[in-house]
Amino acid sequence: MKNNTVEQQLNHRTIRAFKPTTLSKEQLTTLYSVASHTPTSMFMQQMSIMHITDPDKRAAIREVSKQPYVGANGDLLIFLVDLYRNQQIRQQKGKDDGRLHTADIFFQGVDDAIMAAQNVITAAESMNLGVVPLGSIKNDPQKIIDVLDLPKMTFPVLGLQIGIPDQQPQLKPRLPLKFIAFDNDYHREIKLADLADYDQEVTTYYDLRDANRRIDSFTNQIAGAKLDHHYTKRDEIMKVLHQQGLCTDEEI
Amino acid sequence: MKNNTVEQQLNHRTIRAFKPTTLSKEQLTTLYSVASHTPTSMFMQQMSIMHITDPDKRAAIREVSKQPYVGANGDLLIFLVDLYRNQQIRQQKGKDDGRLHTADIFFQGVDDAIMAAQNVITAAESMNLGVVPLGSIKNDPQKIIDVLDLPKMTFPVLGLQIGIPDQQPQLKPRLPLKFIAFDNDYHREIKLADLADYDQEVTTYYDLRDANRRIDSFTNQIAGAKLDHHYTKRDEIMKVLHQQGLCTDEEI
Repeated sequence: MKNNTVEQQLNHRTIRAFKPTTLSKEQLTTLYSVASHTPTSMFMQQMSIMHITDPDKRAAIREVSKQPYVGANGDLLIFLVDLYRNQQIRQQKGKDDGRLHTADIFFQGVDDAIMAAQNVITAAESMNLGVVPLGSIKNDPQKIIDVLDLPKMTFPVLGLQIGIPDQQPQLKPRLPLKFIAFDNDYHREIKLADLADYDQEVTTYYDLRDANRRIDSFTNQIAGAKLDHHYTKRDEIMKVLHQQGLCTDEEI
Repeated sequence: MKNNTVEQQLNHRTIRAFKPTTLSKEQLTTLYSVASHTPTSMFMQQMSIMHITDPDKRAAIREVSKQPYVGANGDLLIFLVDLYRNQQIRQQKGKDDGRLHTADIFFQGVDDAIMAAQNVITAAESMNLGVVPLGSIKNDPQKIIDVLDLPKMTFPVLGLQIGIPDQQPQLKPRLPLKFIAFDNDYHREIKLADLADYDQEVTTYYDLRDANRRIDSFTNQIAGAKLDHHYTKRDEIMKVLHQQGLCTDEEI
């Protein structure tokens, strides 16, 4: 059941090295239009995009992300959950903020922003551009808010670095579908032995970020450092959200 | 800068009436594969999909959503934020749950699941299918968890109803790009007067759900009932997440 779109989606590889070019105005407008035409929860359109070209802001965001390619070659977009715009509209119409501070409405904004980001990834890849999603901006969301002087009621949820690819990674092996797609009943019985073949496949993947070293098996990664207890400013996310006036009414 | 993929994305219309057909195994496998090849935060693959064909479960989900087309014609998919699988892997490797109960890791799972859902929407539309995203499953997430007998550490974050379209809605007008895309600086000054033209455009849209009546202007919608204070079980979302063991370590 393949077509050009599906083939491209199945061929997705995250790109982390770009040529020293920037997107044209036409390319950016196309990407913004695609983001705009994404489904939006209750038609609230609670998503905004910031295109960062200022070198100091790019450097500051790179410092938060701790990834050398962020704000280096290519274009940097920051996707916001944006409830500020609707707060302004309500206020100017003489209404209170209503449900804008609830977790529910915040999560609906997250849906808007994340779906828009994925839509932009798909569009960019169809234009033969490469993309890396930047969850790393959430390493220190307050710093991103400060650097971009974002108003309350917004939250920088995901970044994208986009450009002409300057590397060719392998396709990274995904969990076999039987582990992630179920008919009617969730399959609670997960046995390490059943993941052995997949683990083996994952170890054949070369991560270009790491001097062409093979990566650890999937189950070793999950049982390892990335999910072990450790201190990180990422754990301030709820505090930052609350300071932004978001997701505060946890119990109504 | 258009191509087939981008043209289709710009032409996205949510479909809420489907022909009485179901997806073939090949179509479903294609959609699951596309979901699988979506970017995933830290390669944790914290997304699962449930395909609901059982009539009682479909009816129960329709009752939660309060939308007549849910679980009626077409196929019903429920996207889960799934941290259960990784919890099982860690436990079977003799590790504690580590960061799996943090808000940070939960939000990374949300990114995985929502991006996968958008990717499936794009793939389905490229196959000339229609889709409606179902945020309505969050009207009562605990009920969805009960109906689907979901384990702890999972959360049903979004549904999709997919099928052969049986309606042709207009393209719903989106906010002009100047309101949603910014270079370097967020535009805090939002004036109702600047939205007057867009408001007018929105009122020309016929919503097929409402006997072909025109819809209210955008700013009237935002200032109206959908965001006014009112009681809803949707506000139990944080409580339900915590009961699922998710997003609990708000302050580490």
